[in-house]
Amino acid sequence: MINEKELLKEKAAYFAQESLETLNHYLRLPSVSAQHRAIPETVEFVAGLLETFGGKVKILDDLGGNPVIYGFFPAGSQGNQSKTLLFYNHYDVQPPDPLGEWHSKPFEPLLKDGVLYARGTADNKGSLMQRLAALKTLQEKEGLPCNVKFLIEGEEESGSAHLEPYLKKYKELFSADACIWEFGSKDNEERVQLYAGIKGSAYFELSTKSAEIDIHSSEAACIDDAAWRLVQALSSMKNQNNDILVEGFFDEIEEPNEALKKLVENLPFDQEALKNLYGLKRPLITEARGEDPRQALMFHPTMTICGMISGYTGEGSKTVLPKEASAKLDCRMVPGQTGEHLYKCIRRHLERHGFSDIEVTLINSQEAYRSDINDPFVKLVNKTAQEAYQSETVLFPTSPGTGPMYIFNKYLHLPIVSTGVGWAQSKAHAPNESIRIKDYIDGTLHMVYLLKEFAKI
Amino acid sequence: MINEKELLKEKAAYFAQESLETLNHYLRLPSVSAQHRAIPETVEFVAGLLETFGGKVKILDDLGGNPVIYGFFPAGSQGNQSKTLLFYNHYDVQPPDPLGEWHSKPFEPLLKDGVLYARGTADNKGSLMQRLAALKTLQEKEGLPCNVKFLIEGEEESGSAHLEPYLKKYKELFSADACIWEFGSKDNEERVQLYAGIKGSAYFELSTKSAEIDIHSSEAACIDDAAWRLVQALSSMKNQNNDILVEGFFDEIEEPNEALKKLVENLPFDQEALKNLYGLKRPLITEARGEDPRQALMFHPTMTICGMISGYTGEGSKTVLPKEASAKLDCRMVPGQTGEHLYKCIRRHLERHGFSDIEVTLINSQEAYRSDINDPFVKLVNKTAQEAYQSETVLFPTSPGTGPMYIFNKYLHLPIVSTGVGWAQSKAHAPNESIRIKDYIDGTLHMVYLLKEFAKI
Repeated sequence: MINEKELLKEKAAYFAQESLETLNHYLRLPSVSAQHRAIPETVEFVAGLLETFGGKVKILDDLGGNPVIYGFFPAGSQGNQSKTLLFYNHYDVQPPDPLGEWHSKPFEPLLKDGVLYARGTADNKGSLMQRLAALKTLQEKEGLPCNVKFLIEGEEESGSAHLEPYLKKYKELFSADACIWEFGSKDNEERVQLYAGIKGSAYFELSTKSAEIDIHSSEAACIDDAAWRLVQALSSMKNQNNDILVEGFFDEIEEPNEALKKLVENLPFDQEALKNLYGLKRPLITEARGEDPRQALMFHPTMTICGMISGYTGEGSKTVLPKEASAKLDCRMVPGQTGEHLYKCIRRHLERHGFSDIEVTLINSQEAYRSDINDPFVKLVNKTAQEAYQSETVLFPTSPGTGPMYIFNKYLHLPIVSTGVGWAQSKAHAPNESIRIKDYIDGTLHMVYLLKEFAKI
Repeated sequence: MINEKELLKEKAAYFAQESLETLNHYLRLPSVSAQHRAIPETVEFVAGLLETFGGKVKILDDLGGNPVIYGFFPAGSQGNQSKTLLFYNHYDVQPPDPLGEWHSKPFEPLLKDGVLYARGTADNKGSLMQRLAALKTLQEKEGLPCNVKFLIEGEEESGSAHLEPYLKKYKELFSADACIWEFGSKDNEERVQLYAGIKGSAYFELSTKSAEIDIHSSEAACIDDAAWRLVQALSSMKNQNNDILVEGFFDEIEEPNEALKKLVENLPFDQEALKNLYGLKRPLITEARGEDPRQALMFHPTMTICGMISGYTGEGSKTVLPKEASAKLDCRMVPGQTGEHLYKCIRRHLERHGFSDIEVTLINSQEAYRSDINDPFVKLVNKTAQEAYQSETVLFPTSPGTGPMYIFNKYLHLPIVSTGVGWAQSKAHAPNESIRIKDYIDGTLHMVYLLKEFAKI
């Protein structure tokens, strides 16, 4: 048994290494869904990739949005034909902005000191390649121990707005017994982090127009400007203490049970490491509020200004009353909350507080989802991670991040655990996104172990 | 006498028309001081222009900032050698942003239906050319009736930050008996607007940095973002009713006397026309507050957000906690207020309200100034305007706009009146800035009449 495991480890390392060249090709495709960049060529690339690894592929493109790619790899002749594991990945990436802060080009992979830098390495192209390398490891030996399916979509970074109709229509095609979600990373103490759930997100744009043209700011004694309107409207929605003030915002939340709260209490959390990682200039919100950051990350909804713009933002001074202003708002949701409800709350709040001129658009939304933390599949993913990485794991009942987990469960009814290829410095969504080759190899072995064990339960 | 006036009118029209080609050359120079564009070539162009019209020129460049151009045109042999009129102009222009809203290119003058479109037509290149055309009109006939000096600077649109040392050092060079200021325009009922004073301005940049890198917004339950910090700080400075809340902001204001207030009460003000001109979406500030907009424009200080930016402002959604945010703030000041005092007030206000992380920079500031409304020169500018334009005039004790009038009087001790080439649709500082050729010609005659009469008083 030790010999078999050692052999697998060697093979997994070999095929992981071998796959890096293909990963580099994949990373060079600037598939930014928010900017509609390079989508057709990326779909073609991914479909070809699955076929190269022996998959049957369908490109689903009949329900709007970027195509959804289906891949199927049947169990080998000695495998369990009645068990199917579904992998969820996405081929789109976040915009690379701000470009000036990258040390290398975001779409030119750079390998340096065992770290591979490029947009999409951690989120989420690395994970797909790693999973394919795991399949190859098993195929080369004795064939796959169970069926494997892939769902690879192209709008995850834009809120997976078109995914639900695909899941609804193709639920038979994607049917499986369990699902491995797209992402995961090690923490800064080298523990592998696994997630059995996910927060939701509702992304809004708020905008206002105060005039048809920008006006000389000498008129400001009579005429207000759009920037002030937006600032005042936003400040009515959240105060300096980070209390969200939108009436009804918290109404539909399903409180976590005591057992779950207790579990979260015992999760590791290194406040100083977090501050150092990001170079935070001020205390954590939870510090200032005397709250447990673990509970906040798992169970508190949020309201973030992801961006805002108005008027002249160039060099020096321009004396102008800006005619328009806009902000992008990301609300992370917990189970029970919906984007539609938050939209109504924000709209009503603005009306009530004298800001009926502020337009609100719900850009996209996804509900939160939590798997049963005691499901055998959840436990198996955890156990095999410990074996493959030879390190501790941390199993979170939910990720503070977001994805379409809720609709996967709605149509496919299956336990879902998220694990991936990142490390503590992966900087997903930020400049200089990266993964470590060592983690990439260990994670390949994790997927190999998981598939073998999963076929047996 | 009628014949002489008619002849002058004809000649002024001729030389005004003739000067348009040169004006177009001048307008093609994109001399945006805020962006350090095309300054040396514009200085060269303007100096050459003054020389072409017979002026003695000095380019003053020994005290920092963009060069200040001095021009001197002596009185003719029949003129009054002991009287000197000073013209103040600037060769720099506002940035042309937002570029997408121009119907023609900002630095490619377009003449259409008697209207000349380009950045700088109204503010302030048109006025300089017009004044030179007036000089030529008088030179061709009998020589200048008095001495004429020009001070043409290159940082007016950036707050004239370096002008004071030049005025201080070269006060003898620029000494004069009265000054015609750079700008002015007709109102929408074709009345010529004249200004015997000017508001001040203090331009600030507020910025904050919350982290060394942008952070995935899934962390928002623990980590706040720079955009919210800035929004909350700004909203503490001015409320939804447009009350400026910065403690001490109003402390040093010199109240206008009752006579001046009374004069202002009787100024024309067409609220509906103003709303239509700019396509305003909401009531005037003064409407909502039940205030007289004339008094507000003349005597109230303001606080405008001229621009703000944070995080992702591109297409679609990016889920990020922005690490930094900044805003540009323009405070129009009335007599008594200083930029240094307002800086201290804002700094102290932010500290007191828990925003010590917000950095404040005073980019530039200029104090307000009001000439004596009963000065003979003020009256003369008014009277000759009525004659030249053959229309009503409106004499404002102060312009709601800003410029370095205060320091002109500080070193040169002279009455100052502002008049210029604009019309009601000139859109200074905004896209599609323009002047009408008819006003340009009438204004040339105004300067001719003024110089002749000024030589006599």
